[in-house]
Amino acid sequence: MTIFTKIAKGEIPSYKVAENDKFYAFLDINPLAEGHTLVIPKEVEDDYIFNLDPDVYEGLWAFARKVAIAMKAAIPCKRIGVAVLGMEVPHTHIHLVPLQSEADMDFRKTRPEVTDQRKAELAAAILSEYEKL
Amino acid sequence: MTIFTKIAKGEIPSYKVAENDKFYAFLDINPLAEGHTLVIPKEVEDDYIFNLDPDVYEGLWAFARKVAIAMKAAIPCKRIGVAVLGMEVPHTHIHLVPLQSEADMDFRKTRPEVTDQRKAELAAAILSEYEKL
Repeated sequence: MTIFTKIAKGEIPSYKVAENDKFYAFLDINPLAEGHTLVIPKEVEDDYIFNLDPDVYEGLWAFARKVAIAMKAAIPCKRIGVAVLGMEVPHTHIHLVPLQSEADMDFRKTRPEVTDQRKAELAAAILSEYEKL
Repeated sequence: MTIFTKIAKGEIPSYKVAENDKFYAFLDINPLAEGHTLVIPKEVEDDYIFNLDPDVYEGLWAFARKVAIAMKAAIPCKRIGVAVLGMEVPHTHIHLVPLQSEADMDFRKTRPEVTDQRKAELAAAILSEYEKL
């Protein structure tokens, strides 16, 4: 079982921003920007997104769309950027990153400090928007 | 009409790697790595992917999946990375980038030189794999 499966099950705590029966979204613990979110399938532990069953793949992107709409409503930003790299954790995940400019999507940049209290506020704000959709 | 719409119509030349009735994929002219591909809807000129009609959005990702599978078959790489930034050209596009490591997905890095002849070879190889799917 991957760390992300444990997060989706609630066995490891996370800042949840959205959830349905198959998919889960939570704040990246080391964000590129405030509100940086990871979107995962709850059960599928394949580490390569293009190996997913086509139905799971399409469901994941449909869920990510709703999460991105909620993020854009909750967080001041120009748009939500998307990245899938996935060489670190062996469990498919989509990065959704609030962007002010394209330079914000740089995985080697110095990460901003975001306090636990601020993360809790951000997650609650996104979840509140998600629940309106 | 955006430059990408003109490319999809064939009014501006491109190295085509895949096409169906609604979507088009072609080599990035200034690639992060050999085979770096852009995937676009032919007609929809919204510059923000999460503003697309949900059917177009899901169709675009389904098409991108097939293109990525063809790329992985044609190009030696660990996997195909995904990015959507989209602040430069006002027409939704998904970047698919053959990765050897996560550092390859760095939009600020020095781009490799890829000759026109090599681009033609790469596009033909990907298209050939796409047509088998």
